[in-house]
Amino acid sequence: MNRGDHMRKDLGDALAECGALQFGEFILASGVKSPYYIDIKRASTEPRMLRLIAELMAEKMKEKGIVADKIAGVVLGSVPLAAALSLETGIPFVMVRKEKKDHGTGKLIEGILEEGDRVLVTEDVITTAGSSISAIRTLRDGGAVVGDVISVIDRESGGPEALYQIGVVLSPLVTSSELLKGRI
Amino acid sequence: MNRGDHMRKDLGDALAECGALQFGEFILASGVKSPYYIDIKRASTEPRMLRLIAELMAEKMKEKGIVADKIAGVVLGSVPLAAALSLETGIPFVMVRKEKKDHGTGKLIEGILEEGDRVLVTEDVITTAGSSISAIRTLRDGGAVVGDVISVIDRESGGPEALYQIGVVLSPLVTSSELLKGRI
Repeated sequence: MNRGDHMRKDLGDALAECGALQFGEFILASGVKSPYYIDIKRASTEPRMLRLIAELMAEKMKEKGIVADKIAGVVLGSVPLAAALSLETGIPFVMVRKEKKDHGTGKLIEGILEEGDRVLVTEDVITTAGSSISAIRTLRDGGAVVGDVISVIDRESGGPEALYQIGVVLSPLVTSSELLKGRI
Repeated sequence: MNRGDHMRKDLGDALAECGALQFGEFILASGVKSPYYIDIKRASTEPRMLRLIAELMAEKMKEKGIVADKIAGVVLGSVPLAAALSLETGIPFVMVRKEKKDHGTGKLIEGILEEGDRVLVTEDVITTAGSSISAIRTLRDGGAVVGDVISVIDRESGGPEALYQIGVVLSPLVTSSELLKGRI
């Protein structure tokens, strides 16, 4: 096993052990049947898992040569990930709220974002990347340069392609198929 | 200086250095004039400050003999504090959303809360404690036992008294007057 395989195995085992990754027959919100279910917030609120995720994300930054002035967390899911990666790397973070359709006056970015800041976006689970794309738009409107997203999981449902269309590269810690290999 | 004074001095200096504590003439949202302004999110998104706050909160837990099964962060302000204190102490955390008046079907508590869990609530700035009281109600409805809140700052505007009315003790890292002593 190479280092990457080890990382994926460790993360997969840890997700299964803490109950965040479950096998069986699940009906997703979309109505589609799935042989597994990921409750990622169960992982991100458990300190050993949160620390592991932050360590793996910091390694991924090095591996991919990602340089960032700020880390971004998207409300609410990846805010703990951004905070933990910030503690791990010493890079400050910002929190990006979802755009509100009804009242557009609230502050969408919390924390300090400066014009030209290179921002790495963190995500928990990427499916179609819709909410990431919306957060990236908000960050770019705020003057950020965004070229990278690191997610815990890529569900391989069009996310990387959609991000690529807006000039962003997705680097997941694991893909669904890597996570499930040998487990179901 | 005793240990408590040192802690307060360190925190005050650090808040001033990172720009989270500013002196001058400020008009608050309430219309009241204030000789200082606290931008606590500037502190909680800066990793050295976030780590210092988490360390001081962990010390405060020991000092006050607070035992907790879970830590709670209130969306959005104290979620990074809860995550950092969780990493510092090894205690898992939950995130409490604000109750929505328009649609009440969303999940108000993210993370694992079990019946009878003793929950320590973290807060950034306590003014009247209105949002803390609402979060405590949500947690208690979810089966939590809540007796303590630790905040970074108590603005001494009725917060401790309001919390005491619902059986909760506020332990701030500093009060406004301690923070401002010798500074303005």
